[in-house]
Amino acid sequence: MGKIFAALIVVGVPLTIAGSLLHWPSVAMFIICSVTVIALSSYMGRATESLAIVVGPRVGGLLNATFGNAVELIISIFALKAGLVGVVLASLTGSVLGNLLLVAGLSFFLGGLKFKRQTFSVHDARHNSGLLIFAVVVAFVIPEIFSISMDETKTLNLSIGISVVMIVLYLAGLLFKLVTHRGVYAALEGHGNAAHEEEEPEWGKKKAIGILLLATAAVAYVAESLVHTFAAVGEQFGWSELFIGVIIVAIVGNAAEHASAILMAMKNKMDVAVEIAVGSTLQIAMFVAPVLVLISLFFPTPMPLVFTIPELVSMITAVFLAVSISNDGETNWFEGLTLLAAYFIMGIGFYLL
Amino acid sequence: MGKIFAALIVVGVPLTIAGSLLHWPSVAMFIICSVTVIALSSYMGRATESLAIVVGPRVGGLLNATFGNAVELIISIFALKAGLVGVVLASLTGSVLGNLLLVAGLSFFLGGLKFKRQTFSVHDARHNSGLLIFAVVVAFVIPEIFSISMDETKTLNLSIGISVVMIVLYLAGLLFKLVTHRGVYAALEGHGNAAHEEEEPEWGKKKAIGILLLATAAVAYVAESLVHTFAAVGEQFGWSELFIGVIIVAIVGNAAEHASAILMAMKNKMDVAVEIAVGSTLQIAMFVAPVLVLISLFFPTPMPLVFTIPELVSMITAVFLAVSISNDGETNWFEGLTLLAAYFIMGIGFYLL
Amino acid sequence: MGKIFAALIVVGVPLTIAGSLLHWPSVAMFIICSVTVIALSSYMGRATESLAIVVGPRVGGLLNATFGNAVELIISIFALKAGLVGVVLASLTGSVLGNLLLVAGLSFFLGGLKFKRQTFSVHDARHNSGLLIFAVVVAFVIPEIFSISMDETKTLNLSIGISVVMIVLYLAGLLFKLVTHRGVYAALEGHGNAAHEEEEPEWGKKKAIGILLLATAAVAYVAESLVHTFAAVGEQFGWSELFIGVIIVAIVGNAAEHASAILMAMKNKMDVAVEIAVGSTLQIAMFVAPVLVLISLFFPTPMPLVFTIPELVSMITAVFLAVSISNDGETNWFEGLTLLAAYFIMGIGFYLL
Repeated sequence: MGKIFAALIVVGVPLTIAGSLLHWPSVAMFIICSVTVIALSSYMGRATESLAIVVGPRVGGLLNATFGNAVELIISIFALKAGLVGVVLASLTGSVLGNLLLVAGLSFFLGGLKFKRQTFSVHDARHNSGLLIFAVVVAFVIPEIFSISMDETKTLNLSIGISVVMIVLYLAGLLFKLVTHRGVYAALEGHGNAAHEEEEPEWGKKKAIGILLLATAAVAYVAESLVHTFAAVGEQFGWSELFIGVIIVAIVGNAAEHASAILMAMKNKMDVAVEIAVGSTLQIAMFVAPVLVLISLFFPTPMPLVFTIPELVSMITAVFLAVSISNDGETNWFEGLTLLAAYFIMGIGFYLL
Repeated sequence: MGKIFAALIVVGVPLTIAGSLLHWPSVAMFIICSVTVIALSSYMGRATESLAIVVGPRVGGLLNATFGNAVELIISIFALKAGLVGVVLASLTGSVLGNLLLVAGLSFFLGGLKFKRQTFSVHDARHNSGLLIFAVVVAFVIPEIFSISMDETKTLNLSIGISVVMIVLYLAGLLFKLVTHRGVYAALEGHGNAAHEEEEPEWGKKKAIGILLLATAAVAYVAESLVHTFAAVGEQFGWSELFIGVIIVAIVGNAAEHASAILMAMKNKMDVAVEIAVGSTLQIAMFVAPVLVLISLFFPTPMPLVFTIPELVSMITAVFLAVSISNDGETNWFEGLTLLAAYFIMGIGFYLL
Repeated sequence: MGKIFAALIVVGVPLTIAGSLLHWPSVAMFIICSVTVIALSSYMGRATESLAIVVGPRVGGLLNATFGNAVELIISIFALKAGLVGVVLASLTGSVLGNLLLVAGLSFFLGGLKFKRQTFSVHDARHNSGLLIFAVVVAFVIPEIFSISMDETKTLNLSIGISVVMIVLYLAGLLFKLVTHRGVYAALEGHGNAAHEEEEPEWGKKKAIGILLLATAAVAYVAESLVHTFAAVGEQFGWSELFIGVIIVAIVGNAAEHASAILMAMKNKMDVAVEIAVGSTLQIAMFVAPVLVLISLFFPTPMPLVFTIPELVSMITAVFLAVSISNDGETNWFEGLTLLAAYFIMGIGFYLL
């Protein structure tokens, strides 16, 4: 498997460069870039996994989330520069839905096929639940509802205020998890580090970091080429811009998270798998989205924190489902299937919209 | 009590037949049919209870839900044939509200008057919570919101897609509960079968099945006569069609569930009572509703999965209340009263609408 | 600290009387009255704390909630008499948001800075969660949605019906907590009274009651003067009526709850702190609001139970956040900060609206 992906990268990256220089047809470029991104993300997954063993599950999960979303942040900034505010909001929605329903769903489902019951830290689950509800049900809903009777300036001011609050709370959350309450709950639940010590990382720390950085750079380059194919591919396949933003970008763009979360789930390391899926959702909602709102102020078209109604309702219902399913710190294949079914239903909706 | 119901059936069924042949006045027929259905449902309750003792609480609960909803499925198919899409959606809403708030509320309240604290499986409660949120908050909300900017064909296609996903997930849920994870959680919680062995079923397996089938057939016949009285009765009492569909149909139509759930609650068998109330809700929402959407395609007026806003909002708020109250696996009389109060509030709303 | 507040009261109350007789400028009166109310409420806090030690945490919490909301009830009745229905609904919203997000948030945050993990009764938390969802998500949402297609008379009838149901359920809840299930759950959790015996109340029972009654009377008088300054102050500072009702009234009007809840939290008596914050919210939503609806019928302008959409959505999202955060019976500084962040976001929204 590793050798196939290595081959795909060795072939895919030069092909992407050649194709973007020679202006190959969009559908061909779409397939080349997608496959290359997925292959690269498998390397990112393995590198992150190695690092996760070295640095422990919590920081490991953080690493995963960061390297999965760095790509998205870069692409979104380019899109904002081009004034594509709607596409950026759609891809933020897609990342939230993709991580919360598709990545978590696949992890729970595939992990659950192998293990009858899988557990993860109840305290982490509750911490995450509170933040998911804060981010999506409070911070995204308020501007949506209040902006109905506001002019554009006020809507933007509200968006800026909320964005600053979200970023501050996100950073405070890191402080809480990594400093003031580090290990407080893990000790209570008896989730010691004993189990992790036994494992041998595939790569050393330096090699893993090197591969991670290289693969991230390559993913960023290929992903940008990929983005330019979307409009033409959408036209050819009859996909709306919303469907491309919410579904296609999310699936390809989160392939790295998919890969590593599922790998972890199948090794019964649900703490890491959940940290990747939910942690990544939180990073998108509480950090990437508000940072993009603030960055957009430097571009001609500022981006208010106002999603379309179908986008917002999908995110809210996804949060309620994910919170209800993950709140007991236990998963099984059926809970994974339920999340996947919700993703599928929303996918049909965005396809037909 | 049993003798009174026997007498009511012996008198009620022939009267219903006579009345429908001789076209008796609607209000008289409404009373005769309602009383007969309730008397029949008490027999169904006793038969199901006998069977439940023989086959165990989980399959017993499933039996209850099935025989409570078979009647509704048959009536709804006749209504769809007559093009009464609005009435079918209203009676689906009524069944969800009736089971989740009225049946569960009465069970918790009356059981709670007898026992200070009653418990049921926390794992079942959480499994049900996840599915309730999936069915009502995800699968019913998405077509409602997305169809706002869709034409009729797309709305129907979305409804069909969602219906197929729901049926598949419902069947997967049965597989999970009855096959792959059968007894996994019960063993964990020490809910063994020891307590059930002691009880003697009222009727033997064969007699119980016979009575169950006969009573179901009779209920189906009487219920159909009952439905034909609704329009005239509604006019006479000033009830809107929505009120009849949501409240009256639900109360009479779910009398069987009422009877057996309350019987179980008062015997402190909350696992079965909850399985009847919530299991029946899930069967309506995740199986009966989508099956009716698919069946409606063979009739002149297809039925999209789009409720009215008051119907949908009532169901969503009922689900959040029921999930919040049942999530700890414990009940008392006050929790039952809270559910009943919510039902009463919605009843006033639908009455005045 | 106590001496400063005593001085502020000795100076503030006469100044308020003088100012309202001599018609001093609004901004001056606003500052005098606000400071005096806050100083008085610190005495109310200390008196209630003394009483709470004598009578136990549950009745103590009830006492706190009652004396915090008596003021609001009196002010609201005056406002209803003046036909200011919108202001009353806004200040009800503000009390719900203020107690649930600001008071609870400050208690969790400041308590959490002192103690790493603070706990309170899980059973109380769940009892409160169910009622919060009943009150805000069911009883406030139904008239909002159903009234869209109702005329004024029907909307008012629905409001009256719901109000009666809410009051009955609220009284039943007191019966449950104080009579039928008194101590049932506390015993289960081992929350005995041992810890409380050790403490010495600051004042004796009679002195505490005397101070409580005097301070309440003085707060009521000063608060009324305060209310008359709002219109002029709002104009001067550019605050909308909604912002004044929802944010300013709530902060000053709930200063008593703030004071005593935070005092309790910093003494690690989270059961009392939560009882004050959430119990007060429930009393506002389930008792004060419906009582005001019924009282309004005797005035020229009746008040239906129909909030503005931003008010209702803020309350709903606040309830979901508070329920999600408090459901595990544990708090820490970050959970407090999350509640405060939500309050801040809504504050920005109401300010800009």
